[in-house]
Amino acid sequence: MYYLGIDVGGMSIKGGLIDEKGNILFKESVPTMPERDYKDIIEDIAALCDTLIGKENLKKNDLKGIGVGIPGTIDPEKGVIVYANNINFKKVPIKKELSKYFTCPIKIGNDANVAAFGELKFGAGKGARDLILITLGTGIGTGIIVDNQIILGKGGAGGEGGHIGFKYNGKKCSCGKRGCWEAYASASALIKMTEKAISKNPLGVMAEVAREEGKVSGKTAFIAEKKGDKEAQKVVSNYVKYVSDGIISLVNIFRPDLVLIGGGISNEGDALMKRIQQRVNRFSYGGKINPKITIKKALLMNDAGILGAAALCI
Amino acid sequence: MYYLGIDVGGMSIKGGLIDEKGNILFKESVPTMPERDYKDIIEDIAALCDTLIGKENLKKNDLKGIGVGIPGTIDPEKGVIVYANNINFKKVPIKKELSKYFTCPIKIGNDANVAAFGELKFGAGKGARDLILITLGTGIGTGIIVDNQIILGKGGAGGEGGHIGFKYNGKKCSCGKRGCWEAYASASALIKMTEKAISKNPLGVMAEVAREEGKVSGKTAFIAEKKGDKEAQKVVSNYVKYVSDGIISLVNIFRPDLVLIGGGISNEGDALMKRIQQRVNRFSYGGKINPKITIKKALLMNDAGILGAAALCI
Repeated sequence: MYYLGIDVGGMSIKGGLIDEKGNILFKESVPTMPERDYKDIIEDIAALCDTLIGKENLKKNDLKGIGVGIPGTIDPEKGVIVYANNINFKKVPIKKELSKYFTCPIKIGNDANVAAFGELKFGAGKGARDLILITLGTGIGTGIIVDNQIILGKGGAGGEGGHIGFKYNGKKCSCGKRGCWEAYASASALIKMTEKAISKNPLGVMAEVAREEGKVSGKTAFIAEKKGDKEAQKVVSNYVKYVSDGIISLVNIFRPDLVLIGGGISNEGDALMKRIQQRVNRFSYGGKINPKITIKKALLMNDAGILGAAALCI
Repeated sequence: MYYLGIDVGGMSIKGGLIDEKGNILFKESVPTMPERDYKDIIEDIAALCDTLIGKENLKKNDLKGIGVGIPGTIDPEKGVIVYANNINFKKVPIKKELSKYFTCPIKIGNDANVAAFGELKFGAGKGARDLILITLGTGIGTGIIVDNQIILGKGGAGGEGGHIGFKYNGKKCSCGKRGCWEAYASASALIKMTEKAISKNPLGVMAEVAREEGKVSGKTAFIAEKKGDKEAQKVVSNYVKYVSDGIISLVNIFRPDLVLIGGGISNEGDALMKRIQQRVNRFSYGGKINPKITIKKALLMNDAGILGAAALCI
């Protein structure tokens, strides 16, 4: 059986032809050009779908479903993109529009939710019933699954775990509120922390690492820490606390089987996961009595979007 | 059809005989004496059940179900009290024990969850599909319902919304972590804020109100505020922000139909609800675009426990 998974991003639209076991048979992508009229973007999505089924000489009738993941507020029940952050999508009836081209079931979802669903079906969450995927990037995306169902909220407006409170009256967040978790624990926040530390000591190890790498990135502090730099240790240690404390909030609410961490920073791997796990074990509610949860690196990474989108239909 | 709802508290065990529409036919209570052996407490629960069905001349066979709400970590699937805060209950197989006395279905749940379920079935949440009940008391209890299902988490250890992060590295909370919402927005926290303000100005209006009332309570600042006291206005205004910001965290995750507020402080009524509503509208994620949620006073108050417990079986 064949499915299509489409991952709409601000830069590119990725598509994959996928079988029921989550094998990616073909991948292809086209530029989004996000400022265009939404109908042109949807036309390109339909053309991308045609390209993908053409690769295996399939007909439209062979498709069992098309799933589409989009960044922003998505109303899956209505099949409408309420609002997308970086793409010219406002109240776009994408399901209806795509149905002009395809007759198979079409499902849509928010990209973070879709990625979490992909991890549950085909990735690090296989076999779990509940999981939270936390993607540390420009912001913090969260996809929360309880009993195999994505937490969507009214009109698809829930699941914004990056915007839980972290520090009352703290740093201004992009959402307009102060002190959101995202403002402290996103990759962007780590980069700002690193930049600040470098500006205080422009001749230090972190500054040197940044010069070698050509920029300050989410890796800078981690690399410098491995070289034994005390300042980098401090940056990383604080960042681990920031990430962990938001996770603890989510664990206290959901107590899921698994918490998965995605985004470039998760490439720091086990060393980072272990430190987060320790703090979460220690400070989550009823630490000694309540069931432990497991913190792991997400598995699907760049393919999470297309696999998760397809998984919506499987 | 007849149901029993049992509400186990640290001081007393309340019971109610309830019909399928949520009418309370009889109520009765017995002291908990929480330090006793758990079997003695369960024996008293069974006796209370007998008393209740005796009032209507019913037989055990007439009962369609018994629901029991208990404070602490409850595993409803296993029918086990994992741990209760103020009662000598640790790994107590209460469902099995009660089944020695009754053959009808027996369901158990955490008291905050049970109360939320009661509001959904019979109270301020009638007709809603999703709601969050926030009880502002000694701590903050939260009962979260998504799509008619209580958010339980692994082993029933979820739903602890009082212990989401509020202020990084802030006040020490009873749970061992620092900066939980509960440490700022519970009724106890309000009392501490009021006491602190009074100690700074022992001749002020709040001090006077406290003397008249015989103690500092959750009402003190509200009463003084109504008298035009600037210091009380400040206390109440901060408290409203603290309560609201935790609600915003939960709204960003769940975007429910309704948020209900219970506990003594909810008696401050519409004036308080409106102020919370304003801040939640303003600062919840995507404020202008996303569906508004409604903040209301919980309805069932002291009967929430027994009605919610019975509702587990209805």
